[in-house]
Amino acid sequence: MALTPARQSGGYSQKLSVRSIDLSSGKLIAVLNEIDARELGIFPLDRLEITNPENGRSANAVVDVTDSIIGENSIGMFRELSQLLGVRDGSAVKCNAAPKPRSVGFVKKKMDGGRLSQEELSCIIEDISSNRLSEIETTAFVSAVYMREFDLDETVAMTKALIENGRKLELSSKTVVDKHSIGGTNGRATMIIVPIIAAAGYAIPKTSSRSITSAAGTADSMEVLANVSLQLGAIKRVVEKTNGCIAWGGAVELAPADDKIIKIEHPLSLDPEGQVIASVMAKKASVGAKYVVIDIPVGPYVKVRTREKAEQMALKFVEVGKHLGMKVEVLLTNGTEPSGKAFGPALEAKYALEILEGRFFDNLARKSVEISGALLELTGDVPKGQGYAVSLDILQSGKALQKMKEIISEQGARALSSQDIKTAPYKKEVLSVQNGEISTINVGYLNHIARLAGAPANQKAGVMLDAEQGASVTKGTVLFEIYAENEAKLDAAYEFAIRNRVVEFATIIIGKFD
Amino acid sequence: MALTPARQSGGYSQKLSVRSIDLSSGKLIAVLNEIDARELGIFPLDRLEITNPENGRSANAVVDVTDSIIGENSIGMFRELSQLLGVRDGSAVKCNAAPKPRSVGFVKKKMDGGRLSQEELSCIIEDISSNRLSEIETTAFVSAVYMREFDLDETVAMTKALIENGRKLELSSKTVVDKHSIGGTNGRATMIIVPIIAAAGYAIPKTSSRSITSAAGTADSMEVLANVSLQLGAIKRVVEKTNGCIAWGGAVELAPADDKIIKIEHPLSLDPEGQVIASVMAKKASVGAKYVVIDIPVGPYVKVRTREKAEQMALKFVEVGKHLGMKVEVLLTNGTEPSGKAFGPALEAKYALEILEGRFFDNLARKSVEISGALLELTGDVPKGQGYAVSLDILQSGKALQKMKEIISEQGARALSSQDIKTAPYKKEVLSVQNGEISTINVGYLNHIARLAGAPANQKAGVMLDAEQGASVTKGTVLFEIYAENEAKLDAAYEFAIRNRVVEFATIIIGKFD
Repeated sequence: MALTPARQSGGYSQKLSVRSIDLSSGKLIAVLNEIDARELGIFPLDRLEITNPENGRSANAVVDVTDSIIGENSIGMFRELSQLLGVRDGSAVKCNAAPKPRSVGFVKKKMDGGRLSQEELSCIIEDISSNRLSEIETTAFVSAVYMREFDLDETVAMTKALIENGRKLELSSKTVVDKHSIGGTNGRATMIIVPIIAAAGYAIPKTSSRSITSAAGTADSMEVLANVSLQLGAIKRVVEKTNGCIAWGGAVELAPADDKIIKIEHPLSLDPEGQVIASVMAKKASVGAKYVVIDIPVGPYVKVRTREKAEQMALKFVEVGKHLGMKVEVLLTNGTEPSGKAFGPALEAKYALEILEGRFFDNLARKSVEISGALLELTGDVPKGQGYAVSLDILQSGKALQKMKEIISEQGARALSSQDIKTAPYKKEVLSVQNGEISTINVGYLNHIARLAGAPANQKAGVMLDAEQGASVTKGTVLFEIYAENEAKLDAAYEFAIRNRVVEFATIIIGKFD
Repeated sequence: MALTPARQSGGYSQKLSVRSIDLSSGKLIAVLNEIDARELGIFPLDRLEITNPENGRSANAVVDVTDSIIGENSIGMFRELSQLLGVRDGSAVKCNAAPKPRSVGFVKKKMDGGRLSQEELSCIIEDISSNRLSEIETTAFVSAVYMREFDLDETVAMTKALIENGRKLELSSKTVVDKHSIGGTNGRATMIIVPIIAAAGYAIPKTSSRSITSAAGTADSMEVLANVSLQLGAIKRVVEKTNGCIAWGGAVELAPADDKIIKIEHPLSLDPEGQVIASVMAKKASVGAKYVVIDIPVGPYVKVRTREKAEQMALKFVEVGKHLGMKVEVLLTNGTEPSGKAFGPALEAKYALEILEGRFFDNLARKSVEISGALLELTGDVPKGQGYAVSLDILQSGKALQKMKEIISEQGARALSSQDIKTAPYKKEVLSVQNGEISTINVGYLNHIARLAGAPANQKAGVMLDAEQGASVTKGTVLFEIYAENEAKLDAAYEFAIRNRVVEFATIIIGKFD
């Protein structure tokens, strides 16, 4: 509505007495009595500007309104807020309705189909990370980006905005490279690629995520072997010493606004392409990567389902890279079958170590060597066509294993060999109920079964696959095995496993009409 | 991401011990330790299904995650939640990750540009009102409706969904009529129309809103005269006795989901046309209205700025009315100048009573009589062309004033005559700084000045306009007067008033080139 001009500063302010609430919620939340809220012209979810006159500190908080808990002339403060302002019970603070941040207008502009400039996107990102935009406004922004999409210029601008807003890793002289896989279930290729690349002499400061919907993220698996909650300083130290690291991105604050955006995308499973590209590229730029390989698995159970979609995304990644002075190569990979056979933090960590130890060489190993080879060729130091052989040699010679042990040790070793890793005590096999040739394996279901069994919170729980696509099996053959920490979880996982078609068999007749 | 199937029931559940948190927030909020949250597969803002085994009650709560305040194996509960479940400190409850509500898929469908069916919209509305959709998901829905828009079928379906979801007013035999004005600054036409129509023998159970951005809503003004926080039963009693009432809609829960949607629209000033129409029509249907007049003011400082937009909206209102068995007439009215001269709850209430008392007859009075006449003609009982005269007679004969006093008395009288109404003690006149003819008066600024002076929280604060559009004034003429309850607020309002061009003067030369 256009009835009222934007709130001006110089509006009415009130002195209120602090009542601290011994509770934290990750947000800056103040609680006002409804009489004071009305007096200040504040509605629930509006923002209040609060100043502590003793030290001059001020903050914008989101307001909850109550008619009972907080009395008149008082202001309840959750822990984060009282800490930020440096106030105690009974402190007097000055409060007034915060002017609406400029970025609200830019969010509205995007909702109305406008294109956002660098300055506008930077302002939005700044306001998201400093809590000046509320959760409702941030959600509207994310929804607008999903529905109106970013063009290339906006994607580049968004990437730069995220870089400016976050922290940066400054490494000394070495060439920094990085890789990223888009929403596949990749097994743990990262845990094989990082030591290969580090052993080849490049710096690869990899930050990874924890699982949201799968059985384990790379950070969950690495955590079985070492500490992954590294601050920026620790990452620098580990990488300066070993060339590589595998850390949990959530601890680093490389892109705090992006972390908030991802939190909002999660419940609605939104992943607007422009936002995904900006998010990935900003994190790569923040660690100083000059050469980046992006892996986009394409298949029915992974994020990108069609080749067209993957190609379109690939071109944008390359283009955004150019604008940031980074050399980017995108590999479209076969996402129609599982990479590796382990699902769950400990099982996946053990599986990756076994590959590094040379115990077997499967499709996950091959994929890891392919990506490593592409990275080496991308730097220009390894001639075209020789990357795979160079990488394979690093893996098979044991240099990658040696490097992985160094990295694990620098990150605070918990396990250095596959034999050190224990799996959960309760097990149950799932058997084939028919003879036939396996046509597809539903990786989504396997992840879900591993989660029902307790992964990733129970590190040792998960699923080990025995079956392979294309293999002929007979009734009673073991398809996969479930690991759990107690019988209740084992039963819940098994129950789901036998009620759903995790494995599909090839059929000849696919329809019949009489 | 498509990696994981929707959460299935039968997932892992945990027993936790309740720790009550003496705080209410209007929402069902639970606080979990991050260890338990991980164990349950719950992320911040996810939903937790909680059951009290003692009485079988269960609820879906939104989860905040903490690493400190709530220990392991405990669950913190805000007041609303513990009351709903009937638990005390130390009670044991069963918790598991709530399955994602079906409506999340429908929200996504709308975001992706799909059209929603009656069943899908009903499911969304049901889930919004029962808190199964979180604030993030509801915001995404509101954003989708704003960006993708509702077609006519969807608008009708949305209206029906809101009606089903809310409560209904069941009146005995009388014909029920109603009126609504779209986002104008209407002065208080409602306080003149309701007694005219009630005196004419029709039931008009009017629910009105409080102000959000203006100096006063109808509910704020009526509150100066009587109690407006009426429950459904009280509205029924007042209307059965007097034919009319003017109540605050927020107390009635006619459309609880709509109230939540409006709360989300507010910070972003979103007002998707389809949602506005559904919201208005559902409220009219819920009170059983058969004949409805919708007033759409058109002008530069009101919600609808162009005639095209107003006509388009008008046709949809009529069409939706047909689908609901209601006869709807839409009046486009002149929104280019203020209706009446008062801004602020007490000033507007006093002004409306003065019109009913026959002290003057201005543009607000004329508009009120016009709308009343249209309503009477719409019922078919008053011949076309005679509605205005019949209404005017009811006003001028004093029957409308008598009826207003009955309504006020039944709602618990606070003031029955314009002379009973006190205004704020601190006053300051704003004078013209030039000679000239007044071309426009910025109603948005006047509302803002009234708010700076303390309205609507300070009932007696506000602005009284002296100037009129088209009038010739000389330097030093009083343009308007500000009323405030203390000097600080008076100064803040006056400061804004003299720094902004509230009144524009007609100019002959509008450009000059040499």
